[in-house]
Amino acid sequence: MRPSGRAPDQMREIRIEPGFTRHAEGSVLVSFGDTRVLCTASVEEKVPPFLRGKGQGWVTAEYGMLPRATHTRGNREAAKGKQSGRTQEIQRLIGRSLRAVVDLKALGERQIVVDCDVLQADGGTRTAAISGAWCALRIAVDKLIEAKSLPSDPIRTQVGAVSCGIHNGTAVLDLDYIEDSAAGCDGNFVLTADGSIVEAQVTAEGECYDEEGLLRLLRLARIGCSEIFQAQLKATGK
Amino acid sequence: MRPSGRAPDQMREIRIEPGFTRHAEGSVLVSFGDTRVLCTASVEEKVPPFLRGKGQGWVTAEYGMLPRATHTRGNREAAKGKQSGRTQEIQRLIGRSLRAVVDLKALGERQIVVDCDVLQADGGTRTAAISGAWCALRIAVDKLIEAKSLPSDPIRTQVGAVSCGIHNGTAVLDLDYIEDSAAGCDGNFVLTADGSIVEAQVTAEGECYDEEGLLRLLRLARIGCSEIFQAQLKATGK
Amino acid sequence: MRPSGRAPDQMREIRIEPGFTRHAEGSVLVSFGDTRVLCTASVEEKVPPFLRGKGQGWVTAEYGMLPRATHTRGNREAAKGKQSGRTQEIQRLIGRSLRAVVDLKALGERQIVVDCDVLQADGGTRTAAISGAWCALRIAVDKLIEAKSLPSDPIRTQVGAVSCGIHNGTAVLDLDYIEDSAAGCDGNFVLTADGSIVEAQVTAEGECYDEEGLLRLLRLARIGCSEIFQAQLKATGK
Amino acid sequence: MRPSGRAPDQMREIRIEPGFTRHAEGSVLVSFGDTRVLCTASVEEKVPPFLRGKGQGWVTAEYGMLPRATHTRGNREAAKGKQSGRTQEIQRLIGRSLRAVVDLKALGERQIVVDCDVLQADGGTRTAAISGAWCALRIAVDKLIEAKSLPSDPIRTQVGAVSCGIHNGTAVLDLDYIEDSAAGCDGNFVLTADGSIVEAQVTAEGECYDEEGLLRLLRLARIGCSEIFQAQLKATGK
Amino acid sequence: MRPSGRAPDQMREIRIEPGFTRHAEGSVLVSFGDTRVLCTASVEEKVPPFLRGKGQGWVTAEYGMLPRATHTRGNREAAKGKQSGRTQEIQRLIGRSLRAVVDLKALGERQIVVDCDVLQADGGTRTAAISGAWCALRIAVDKLIEAKSLPSDPIRTQVGAVSCGIHNGTAVLDLDYIEDSAAGCDGNFVLTADGSIVEAQVTAEGECYDEEGLLRLLRLARIGCSEIFQAQLKATGK
Amino acid sequence: MRPSGRAPDQMREIRIEPGFTRHAEGSVLVSFGDTRVLCTASVEEKVPPFLRGKGQGWVTAEYGMLPRATHTRGNREAAKGKQSGRTQEIQRLIGRSLRAVVDLKALGERQIVVDCDVLQADGGTRTAAISGAWCALRIAVDKLIEAKSLPSDPIRTQVGAVSCGIHNGTAVLDLDYIEDSAAGCDGNFVLTADGSIVEAQVTAEGECYDEEGLLRLLRLARIGCSEIFQAQLKATGK
Repeated sequence: MRPSGRAPDQMREIRIEPGFTRHAEGSVLVSFGDTRVLCTASVEEKVPPFLRGKGQGWVTAEYGMLPRATHTRGNREAAKGKQSGRTQEIQRLIGRSLRAVVDLKALGERQIVVDCDVLQADGGTRTAAISGAWCALRIAVDKLIEAKSLPSDPIRTQVGAVSCGIHNGTAVLDLDYIEDSAAGCDGNFVLTADGSIVEAQVTAEGECYDEEGLLRLLRLARIGCSEIFQAQLKATGK
Repeated sequence: MRPSGRAPDQMREIRIEPGFTRHAEGSVLVSFGDTRVLCTASVEEKVPPFLRGKGQGWVTAEYGMLPRATHTRGNREAAKGKQSGRTQEIQRLIGRSLRAVVDLKALGERQIVVDCDVLQADGGTRTAAISGAWCALRIAVDKLIEAKSLPSDPIRTQVGAVSCGIHNGTAVLDLDYIEDSAAGCDGNFVLTADGSIVEAQVTAEGECYDEEGLLRLLRLARIGCSEIFQAQLKATGK
Repeated sequence: MRPSGRAPDQMREIRIEPGFTRHAEGSVLVSFGDTRVLCTASVEEKVPPFLRGKGQGWVTAEYGMLPRATHTRGNREAAKGKQSGRTQEIQRLIGRSLRAVVDLKALGERQIVVDCDVLQADGGTRTAAISGAWCALRIAVDKLIEAKSLPSDPIRTQVGAVSCGIHNGTAVLDLDYIEDSAAGCDGNFVLTADGSIVEAQVTAEGECYDEEGLLRLLRLARIGCSEIFQAQLKATGK
Repeated sequence: MRPSGRAPDQMREIRIEPGFTRHAEGSVLVSFGDTRVLCTASVEEKVPPFLRGKGQGWVTAEYGMLPRATHTRGNREAAKGKQSGRTQEIQRLIGRSLRAVVDLKALGERQIVVDCDVLQADGGTRTAAISGAWCALRIAVDKLIEAKSLPSDPIRTQVGAVSCGIHNGTAVLDLDYIEDSAAGCDGNFVLTADGSIVEAQVTAEGECYDEEGLLRLLRLARIGCSEIFQAQLKATGK
Repeated sequence: MRPSGRAPDQMREIRIEPGFTRHAEGSVLVSFGDTRVLCTASVEEKVPPFLRGKGQGWVTAEYGMLPRATHTRGNREAAKGKQSGRTQEIQRLIGRSLRAVVDLKALGERQIVVDCDVLQADGGTRTAAISGAWCALRIAVDKLIEAKSLPSDPIRTQVGAVSCGIHNGTAVLDLDYIEDSAAGCDGNFVLTADGSIVEAQVTAEGECYDEEGLLRLLRLARIGCSEIFQAQLKATGK
Repeated sequence: MRPSGRAPDQMREIRIEPGFTRHAEGSVLVSFGDTRVLCTASVEEKVPPFLRGKGQGWVTAEYGMLPRATHTRGNREAAKGKQSGRTQEIQRLIGRSLRAVVDLKALGERQIVVDCDVLQADGGTRTAAISGAWCALRIAVDKLIEAKSLPSDPIRTQVGAVSCGIHNGTAVLDLDYIEDSAAGCDGNFVLTADGSIVEAQVTAEGECYDEEGLLRLLRLARIGCSEIFQAQLKATGK
C-alpha cells in the first residue's frame, strides 16, 4: 500500500496550466500532485559564444527552488552565492532532455532558455520540470512559427519524464516526497513520445537492484509518460 | 490619461490568495494587477547569532525575482553568484517594514523569515511584496497563537506599501511598469493601519520635486494603503 | 539637549579640503564633524556597455568604509568577497544624486566614477559623501572644461545631502553616531541648490511619524543644505 | 572496428598502483588505458555537522581534474572560484557509489574523504575514479582494522564502474575519448562484486535507445566490472 | 640622475602623523613622499581559532588600496569580490614583519589587527605600510600598558622597511613610482632597529643581479631604515 | 645533524621524469626527495588581453596542491571558491622566474601556461615547481622550434630554485618539511645557469639574520642549483 493510497502504476494528478505568466514566450505551471513547477521559455536572438557563427541554435535550462517550496526552509542559493551540485545536475539534465528532441540547426541562430522554478515540492521536481519545460518550449516555438521566424518545426517529438522506485519492495510510479525519502532505489526516466529512451538514471539507496528491477521501473515509466504526453498535448492545444 | 486608463488615485486590482503554497506556516500570492509576488513566512525556533540569549525574536525578509518575471529575461542571481544591490535594498526594506509593526520581545526567541518571490513583474514589486509579506506573517503568527506557542499577539498593527509618482505631470498612485519607466519622480510609502508612516522614499528621476509634491504623493499613498489594508484583513480572515 | 551640545538646527562643522590626493581629476576630503570621507572623481574616456554609442555619458559612484573607520573594527569587504547591502544601497544613492544634476548628453561619451571612502565615521557618512562627491565631480569637470574637452558645463546645479531625525522627541539636524543609534526615526535628504528635492528617505526606527514630522525634518534639511552649498562653493573656488 | 583496435567487449589495460603517494591513509593511481586518476583516502576522526552524535560515520568524495589533464587546457576551477556542474555531479556519484557498499554504522563516528584527481584524461575518468576510490578506501579501512580502531569490517563488498556506449552502431565497453566524443549514446554503470547494480545512467547523445540497448550496455558493463574487481583485489592484496 | 633629483642614498621625506583617525587604538598616516598610507591598529580581546587556549596572542595585517590612489583608477577589490594576489602577498608580508618583533606570549590572548590602506600611491606602498604599521601597533600597545592590561612590553624592537633597486645601472634607495616602473631589479628590505634582517626580497626585473648587487641594496636599506626608525620614535613620542 | 641525516650542503635526490603526462606540449614530474610536483606547459596561440597586438608573447604559471598532498588533508581550493594568498604568491613567483629567462619578443604572440600541481609535499614545493617548470617550458619550446613555429630559441638560459635556511643554528640546503617547520629563518633562491640571481627571498622565522647569514644561504643555493641545472639538462636531453 502506498502512503497516498495510489496503485503502484498510478501517477499523481497531472495538471499543466499554459500561460501562467505573461511575459515569457512560453509559460506553464505544471503540477504532479503537490509538486508545482513554473516553466518559462525565453527566446533570445543570439547564441552562446561557443556556437557563434555555427549556423545552429541552442536550448538550455535553469532550475531553482524557492526557499520555502520544501517542508523546512532551505537557504536561498542567490544569498549563498552559489548553486548546489544538485541544482546544477538537474538543470543539466533538463537541458539535455530538451535538446534530445530539438533539431538545433532548424532552430536557427537563436537560444531558448527554459527556466524551471519549483514553487512547491513534493518529490519528482526534476521530472515535472522536464515535462513542463517541453510545453513551455513548444508554446514558444509555436509563436516563432506563427510569426514566420521559423520555416519548419525544429521540435521532432515530445519529451517527458517520470520517477519510479522500489518502495517497500514494490516498484512504484511517480514517487512523492514520503516515498522518495524511504525508497530502496529510485530512478528518473526521460522518454520520447515515439518510444525512445533519452535518459535513464537509477540509483540504489540502500537496496541494490538487478536487470529485472531496472526493466520493471522502465515499464512503469512508459505508463507514466504516456499519461504525461497526453497532458502535454492538451495543454499546448495540439 | 494613464496608459492603463486608471484614474490618478486608482489602485490596480489587489488580490491576496492565502494558502497558495502549503508547506510554509504562512503563504499568500499577492497581486497588484499583473505584478504577482509569492510571499511565504517560515517560523524558525532559533534567532540569528547577534540576538542569541537576548530574550527577543527577529523578523527578516528575502526577496527574489524569477528570471523571466520581467519583459526580457534577467540573469538568475543564484547563477551569477550574487544578489544585486537592488535585491538587497528591497529585502532590507521589507524586513524593516515588518519589524516596525512587530513587538520582537513578544515574539519570543524565534525568527520568522518572509520570502517574497516575484513570479511576474509589472511595477511595484516591492510594495506588493511588503503588503503580501504582512499577510504571510499574520497567518504564521496566528498559527503560533492557536498552538499556544505565543501568549499574546506580537503584531501591533497592519503594514502596507504602495508606490506613487509623477507621470506626465500628474501625481498618480500605484505605478505599473510603463508608468514607472517614464515617471519624472517616484516614491514608495510604507504606512501602518493606524495612520503612521514607517518609511517614505521619494526619488527624482529627471524631474526634481518640492514639499508640495511630496505631500501630494503621500496623500495618494494613504488612499492606496487603505484599500490594501482592507484586502489584507479579508485575506487573513479578520 | 543634544549629546554634542548643538542646537537642534545646528550642523556639525563642515570642512571640504580640495586636492587631498593628487592623482584623481577631482579630489576632496569632506568632514561633517568627525565624519571624514575622501571623495575622488576619475574621468574615463569610455562609457559602460549599456550606453555605448548612445551619445551620452555616465556618472556613477562607489562607496567603501575603511575597516577601522568605526568604533569597533568591521570586516573588510574585499576580504569577505562581497559588498554588503548597506554599501550597495549607499553607492546607488550617491550615483543617483549626482546624475540628478548632470546633463549626461552634455557630458559626452565619457564616464566619471566618484569613489567615496570613509576614513572616519561618526554618523552621516552617506550625506557627507554626496556633498563631497559633488565637489570632486565639479573639480574634475572644471578640468575638462579648461582643457576644452567639454564645450559647455554639464553640471546644472549643486547637490548636497544631510541627515535629520527625531532624537528624544526633538527633530534634529545632522545626526552624529550617538544620536543616530538612538533616533526614533531618521532620514536622509538630498537637495539641490535651486531648492528642489532629489531624494527623501525617512525611516521609522521604533517611532513612526506623520506628515508634520516629515515636513519638520525637511525644513531642517533645507537649513543644513544651504550651509553645505556655501562650503561647496568655497571649496571649488566659485 | 574501434579506433583503438579493441574488441567491442574489451577493456583498456587496467592498472592500479597502491601507495602512489605516502601521506594519505589509502592511495592508488588507477589507470584505464591513458586515463589516470590519483585516488587518496583520508580518515578524519569527526563527522560532518548533520551526523554529529548520530553514532555513524560518513564517506564522501571530491573530484578534480588538473588543467592540462585534457587535450586542450581547461581553466583551473580554483582560479575560476567555482566547481563546474560536471565536477559536482561526478563527485556526488563517487560518494554515493562508495556509500552503497559501506556500513556507515560499523564505520563509527569518523569520516573518510576520498579525493579523485585526474592527472590524465582519455575518457571514463569518473568510472576509473570510482574503481580506484574503492581501493583507496579499502586500504585506509584495512589500516583502521589493523590498528584495532574498527571492531569489524564496514566494507560489505567491492564496487566498480565502467562506461559503455553505442559507437558507430555497436555497443562497446570502456569508451576512450575518441569514442566518447562520437558516441550516439553512452552510459556509466556502477556495479558491486556480488552482482548488484548501484547506479545506471544512460544518456542519449543524438541517438535515442530502447530496452534492448540498455540491457546490451549493462551486459558489457558486467564484463568490464569483473575485470575491474580482479584488479582491485590484486592491488589491495586480497 | 634620479627623476626626482634625489641622491642615490636619499630617502623621500618621511612624515608620520599619529592620531590621524580617532577610533582605532593606534593610528598614523605615514608618508614616504607622495605615498601615503593610513595605518590603524585594532585591539581585539580574542584570538583566531587556531590559537584559542594556547596562551598567546596574534598580530596580523590587512592591506588595501583606494581605487584612485593610483595614476589610473583600479577596480575596487570589494566590488570584484576578491583580493588580488598582490594584495594578499603584501598583507602577509606586513603581518610577518610585525610578528618578528613582538613576543606573542607576552601579548596575552588578544589579537591586534593592523589595517594599512593606501590613500595615495607613488611607489613603496608596502614598505611605508610596514613602517607605519609598527607605529600604530606601538601606540595601541602603549595604551594597553597604560591601562595595565599588559604586565610587560611585548614589542622587542622597532621594525621598518624600505625598497631599493637598480635604476639606470645605479643602486638607489626608496624608489618612487617612476623609478619602480623602470627598475632593472628591485627589492624590499625589512630591518629591525637592532640591526637584524627580518625579510629580504629582491627580484630581477629584466636585469639579473649578483651577490655584490644584493649587498649594495642591503647597505642602502640600512641607511633608509635608520631614518625611518628615527621618524618612528618621534611619532610615537619615545 | 639534520633529521634526514643529510650533510648541510646536501640536496635531496632530484628526479625529473619527462613526459609524465601526454597531452601537454611539455610535461615533467619533478621530485626533490618526497616532494613531487607535476609540471605541464601548455602552448596557446593567443596572448592575454593586455598584450594583444604588442608583438610579444607571455609566460605565466599556476600552482595547486592536491588536498592530500600534505600530512593532514587541506581543503580543496576549488571547493572553497578561492585560491589562498600562499597559492597566489607562489604562482606569481614561478611566473616571474620563468619570464626572467625568456625573451618574450622572440616567443611571438603566444602564451605558455605552466601548471605546477603538487602531488606530494615534503617541503620546498615552490622551488621544485620552478625547477620542473623550466623543463616543461624547455620541452614545449623545443617542440615549437622543431615545428618551425619559432625562428630562434626564446629561452636564454636555465632557471632553477632551491630553499635554504638556518636549522638548529646551521645553514642547510633544500629543507624538508621537518626542517622547514623548525627553521629559524628560511629563504628561497631563484638562480640562472649563468650565475645570476633572479629572486632572493629570505624570511626570519623567530631568528633574525644578518648579511653574513644571507650570503651563507646564497652560497648553499648556488651549490644546490648547480645540481638542479644538471638534472634539468639530463631530463630535457641537452
